[in-house]
Amino acid sequence: MSGRTYRIGVAGLGTVGAGLLKFLGERPDFAPAGGRAVVTGVSARSRSRKRPVDISNLPWFDDPVALATSPETDIFVELVGGSDGPAKAAVEAALNAGKPVVTANKALIAEHGAELAALAEAKGVPLLFEAAVMGGVPAVKMVREALVGDDIRSIAGILNGTCNYILTEMEATGRAFSEVLSDAQRLGYAEADPTMDVGGFDAAHKITILAALAFGCAPSYAAAEIEGIDQIELLDIKLARDLGYRIKLVASADRSEDGVLVRVHPSLAPMSHPLAQAGGALNALFIEGERIGRIFVQGPGAGAGPTAAAVAADIADVMTNTVRPVFQKPAGALAPFTPVDPSRSMGRAYLRFLVKDEPGVIAAVSETLAEAGVSIESFLQKPVENADGVPIVLTTHAVAESVLNAAVERIAGLPAVLDRPRLLRIARI
Amino acid sequence: MSGRTYRIGVAGLGTVGAGLLKFLGERPDFAPAGGRAVVTGVSARSRSRKRPVDISNLPWFDDPVALATSPETDIFVELVGGSDGPAKAAVEAALNAGKPVVTANKALIAEHGAELAALAEAKGVPLLFEAAVMGGVPAVKMVREALVGDDIRSIAGILNGTCNYILTEMEATGRAFSEVLSDAQRLGYAEADPTMDVGGFDAAHKITILAALAFGCAPSYAAAEIEGIDQIELLDIKLARDLGYRIKLVASADRSEDGVLVRVHPSLAPMSHPLAQAGGALNALFIEGERIGRIFVQGPGAGAGPTAAAVAADIADVMTNTVRPVFQKPAGALAPFTPVDPSRSMGRAYLRFLVKDEPGVIAAVSETLAEAGVSIESFLQKPVENADGVPIVLTTHAVAESVLNAAVERIAGLPAVLDRPRLLRIARI
Repeated sequence: MSGRTYRIGVAGLGTVGAGLLKFLGERPDFAPAGGRAVVTGVSARSRSRKRPVDISNLPWFDDPVALATSPETDIFVELVGGSDGPAKAAVEAALNAGKPVVTANKALIAEHGAELAALAEAKGVPLLFEAAVMGGVPAVKMVREALVGDDIRSIAGILNGTCNYILTEMEATGRAFSEVLSDAQRLGYAEADPTMDVGGFDAAHKITILAALAFGCAPSYAAAEIEGIDQIELLDIKLARDLGYRIKLVASADRSEDGVLVRVHPSLAPMSHPLAQAGGALNALFIEGERIGRIFVQGPGAGAGPTAAAVAADIADVMTNTVRPVFQKPAGALAPFTPVDPSRSMGRAYLRFLVKDEPGVIAAVSETLAEAGVSIESFLQKPVENADGVPIVLTTHAVAESVLNAAVERIAGLPAVLDRPRLLRIARI
Repeated sequence: MSGRTYRIGVAGLGTVGAGLLKFLGERPDFAPAGGRAVVTGVSARSRSRKRPVDISNLPWFDDPVALATSPETDIFVELVGGSDGPAKAAVEAALNAGKPVVTANKALIAEHGAELAALAEAKGVPLLFEAAVMGGVPAVKMVREALVGDDIRSIAGILNGTCNYILTEMEATGRAFSEVLSDAQRLGYAEADPTMDVGGFDAAHKITILAALAFGCAPSYAAAEIEGIDQIELLDIKLARDLGYRIKLVASADRSEDGVLVRVHPSLAPMSHPLAQAGGALNALFIEGERIGRIFVQGPGAGAGPTAAAVAADIADVMTNTVRPVFQKPAGALAPFTPVDPSRSMGRAYLRFLVKDEPGVIAAVSETLAEAGVSIESFLQKPVENADGVPIVLTTHAVAESVLNAAVERIAGLPAVLDRPRLLRIARI
């Protein structure tokens, strides 16, 4: 436990960066491992932008790379964001200069984690990113450190608070996706360009990182199967509820003998399930291991306070002089990511068809499913006012995805089916 | 990341010790920080006892102190149990010899944690005890490492799986405490002497440890207010359910300006609350921080697999050469534990009185409460077959515990009250 002072360079002064400065300002005694952390340099796009913290007394760097490599910087904190550009350049520069790096940048780690890990380990410095996943909930530390005494089989959870907020609001208020999104943007819960969140890409970055930590394979964002919530209709939220389910954007990673399947897609969770109960902007995660069984963790996945706390915890970890691989294994020992063909995966599904209100339609749909080998678990037909047709909705027993897709395609071709069928998966958790 | 081999001495070969040997046998590649862990010595009370793992090839030590101080031992793992005696002697001997210690011993850490931390830090070696609290759920690591970037206000949860199992079974089967306990003992879910579990002492050890980690104060088991579940009657479980609550043994630690209040007692949690939903032998915990908000974590709190996994994770941590205080702060900087007078704490309560079935009784009870300043939130009178009197049950609004106790005492003295009043607190989470 050294009493030394660590000089922190912070690049990026948005919500999280300002939150970190505020925390370190409020806690000048912050010394969890004996040493002290003092911010000695900042960098951001605009020096004059209004911020909730005063930076006038802090040395300013126009270029984050200069801050990262400054002899006055002991630990470089990257809160710029983005998988490439200045964030990547600055992180690489810091590691090359032998400086520990703490980042909240999920895109950077998910897309370039393997090469950055190799660089960090070659230089013998830590590269930490607790704040990249689930904000203040220590999912990264749990998987990387606390669960190494087990073999993790699968992880599944709600990793994007914006999507969870939108889905919760749609159900609570009965408003459509686009309306709730506009409100969320106005309130600052969603970005002006919401694609990363509602398209599922942000959750995919996060589950890619967790999969690498859990399974000891190189992070492979390109291998993730991604579907967002932008196609979710209010009607499906209501019909799912009638069947006892709630629609959530679930990110999952499953390991089998064939490899790893990383997916993000809207999923139906039974109403009483902890994932269904996690409302609003909450994040929630199940981790399942051979010996440990199932661990569930839930908390705020974003926001200045929680995310800055996660960055501060990483800074504390740097101060402990821990030597540990960036992912579960040393970068050179990480298994190559072997993706599993999702069409072979088995699961239950929710299907909705808009059909003509005429005799024989239900028979045609159910016969087509039976012929394809899809077994129906529950079936619901419910009249909807002002609709051109009648929606029928059903859930299936477990079926291979390829079989299901083929059956849905055949049903889509039936003359009585009026609209593109909707397919949602039922969570396997 | 050294490639060195760490020689592990394991004292205590019960469920957890055997689970650890099994894990390390199944995972000869276990090297999360580069080094390898190999068991090079074991000690237990009986060498010949039947065990699920073969120990015939391992060097045997009759005396755990000899194993702890053996030059062949790099890391000493203490799974003997008990706050004093051989466990304490062996841990002290290992630390004095400058050897890292990993233990699952909650009693030892709760009762002697401050002095052992001082010894470990003086010798510059880690003393880790993840398996002491919540088995495979990394509660210790979360509080000690992941949440240092925040100021924790309170922790509350279900920390004893045996009690949770008994309460869940009582509700599910409608059987009395003593019957369910006998069954649990027969099935191996409860010890032959169940006092540590059902008396709340095991949970008190665990919450004492978490409080020290969360608040940076010396662990003080003696200051814990402890009440077990052995007085819980089936009638209260049923009446609580009628009022929308489930009875759980909740361990909590709250920090205020006055000090810290550590308590274990049966508590009513609203049926939809995550703590009420955690059934069977599950453990569950809420952690509330100034910045982070509330984090919830749940998982199996005991068993060979989860607990051995926690021990293995601690062994991995030793291999990372981390230098960090045993509790939240260096032993010399830990605040003395300042207990808060529980009679001043505010909370809602559940009260049950058995009264004579005659006019004016409800009026007498409610007037007594009103005079004492206790405000009633809900009230339920329900006839019970074959009962000598009529139970009336009510919940109060928040009230100081001293006020409540005085009111209950006065009601107990009313001539129409037939039996000792029952008081249960409503969880403040």
